[in-house]
Amino acid sequence: MTGAKQGGGGEEPVTLDLLKRKMDDFAKERDWEKFHSPRNLLLALVGEVGELSEIFQWKGEVPKGLPDWKEEEKVHLGEELSDVLLYLVRLSDVCGIDLHEAALRKIELNAQKYPVKKESSNRYKSSDDPSAAA
Amino acid sequence: MTGAKQGGGGEEPVTLDLLKRKMDDFAKERDWEKFHSPRNLLLALVGEVGELSEIFQWKGEVPKGLPDWKEEEKVHLGEELSDVLLYLVRLSDVCGIDLHEAALRKIELNAQKYPVKKESSNRYKSSDDPSAAA
Amino acid sequence: MTGAKQGGGGEEPVTLDLLKRKMDDFAKERDWEKFHSPRNLLLALVGEVGELSEIFQWKGEVPKGLPDWKEEEKVHLGEELSDVLLYLVRLSDVCGIDLHEAALRKIELNAQKYPVKKESSNRYKSSDDPSAAA
Amino acid sequence: MTGAKQGGGGEEPVTLDLLKRKMDDFAKERDWEKFHSPRNLLLALVGEVGELSEIFQWKGEVPKGLPDWKEEEKVHLGEELSDVLLYLVRLSDVCGIDLHEAALRKIELNAQKYPVKKESSNRYKSSDDPSAAA
Repeated sequence: MTGAKQGGGGEEPVTLDLLKRKMDDFAKERDWEKFHSPRNLLLALVGEVGELSEIFQWKGEVPKGLPDWKEEEKVHLGEELSDVLLYLVRLSDVCGIDLHEAALRKIELNAQKYPVKKESSNRYKSSDDPSAAA
Repeated sequence: MTGAKQGGGGEEPVTLDLLKRKMDDFAKERDWEKFHSPRNLLLALVGEVGELSEIFQWKGEVPKGLPDWKEEEKVHLGEELSDVLLYLVRLSDVCGIDLHEAALRKIELNAQKYPVKKESSNRYKSSDDPSAAA
Repeated sequence: MTGAKQGGGGEEPVTLDLLKRKMDDFAKERDWEKFHSPRNLLLALVGEVGELSEIFQWKGEVPKGLPDWKEEEKVHLGEELSDVLLYLVRLSDVCGIDLHEAALRKIELNAQKYPVKKESSNRYKSSDDPSAAA
Repeated sequence: MTGAKQGGGGEEPVTLDLLKRKMDDFAKERDWEKFHSPRNLLLALVGEVGELSEIFQWKGEVPKGLPDWKEEEKVHLGEELSDVLLYLVRLSDVCGIDLHEAALRKIELNAQKYPVKKESSNRYKSSDDPSAAA
């Protein structure tokens, strides 16, 4: 993984495919592929989700935008969110799953499952639908 | 969320930014933004990681590429990986974290923490470095 | 697993050891021991933690005692908390870890790490200490 | 939390109730009850499950009894298993759920859902039934 440029205008857009290739190069360059079995990566991802949760665990309810957080807390949060993302991308790749196709399809499936209502009342009953039935 | 085209050549590349915009549109169109507080989204992400784990829990050690899995199992896996990804993207957005910048920076940080060795022996001691010290 | 009596006075107290024996009988009677490898059980536990999280994910901040929850929601919560507990007990047993000894020792370790302060200000710095330094 | 005796013969058996009382004393003595809301404790539990996963993430498939693990690795594992247990007990208490009653009831429910078969073939289809249909 050489010559990586930081985001910004004119650079290669940060696609899931770019992250996948960077993670693959990273592992190959260090001879770490043998450790990247599906279940090893899954447990590593769970570990990172734990670290992400630890950031929030004693804060109580926090508002969007995290207005009272110091800059270093936000940087740390960005690192943990990234750790989860990178293991997720790597896990998908190692499982032979095209994550960007799957993600687009899932958004479409969700749109069909929860169609936009013209009227204001939402009548969803599924417990994973946050809009409680009126 | 209108006019979504499925991946493939000539389409808008699937960047983290595209997914972020689609998730934002999705929530706005259904008036679900009020449910998307940071901690609500974090717990939803944990729920999806649980569903991802359930796919693997009784399978024992599985090889890369999941050669023995049926097509429907792989499709299901793609859906659960996507669910985790979409909540992660949404959580990052709602926290005001630029996930693509953070991800690129984290890859660089990892490259510095675990530089590529010329010689074959790896002398890393950190427990989250899979290459055990020789 | 025969003759199990429900809690209450005069019955065998619900010790971690009792739960361990019940889980072991349960697996033996169904010839499920071969599925109970450490990592299988760990992933099953992660799956149950996900289900537990789903119960809380859209509720926002909830007060202690869950005063507004319906009885069936509390029963469901008890089931998910139990699922996590039972896999944790089983995982510990299969790993050869004496969970009750470990738990008592951990409470003692925590008491030494966070001694009770005579004065009112807490000066702990560790991020997993909920009482922020004054 | 005073006068705590370490396990062993003749001591108070380690019941879920004992752990509940010890955790409650611990929080009261340090004036930490205000941090112990249901969702704070749930996220702390998720954090500990992450630490537990990290212990196993690069090990590949490990056999029961963890025969090749050093003593200090097993002690560390016992500590992480305990951390998960203690937060689970505290979360249940703060939610007003009687965890020992719920656990016994869940074992009974599981026994009904997966009755012991006289014949050797298991014909369960549920994906969370580890015995695959013959």
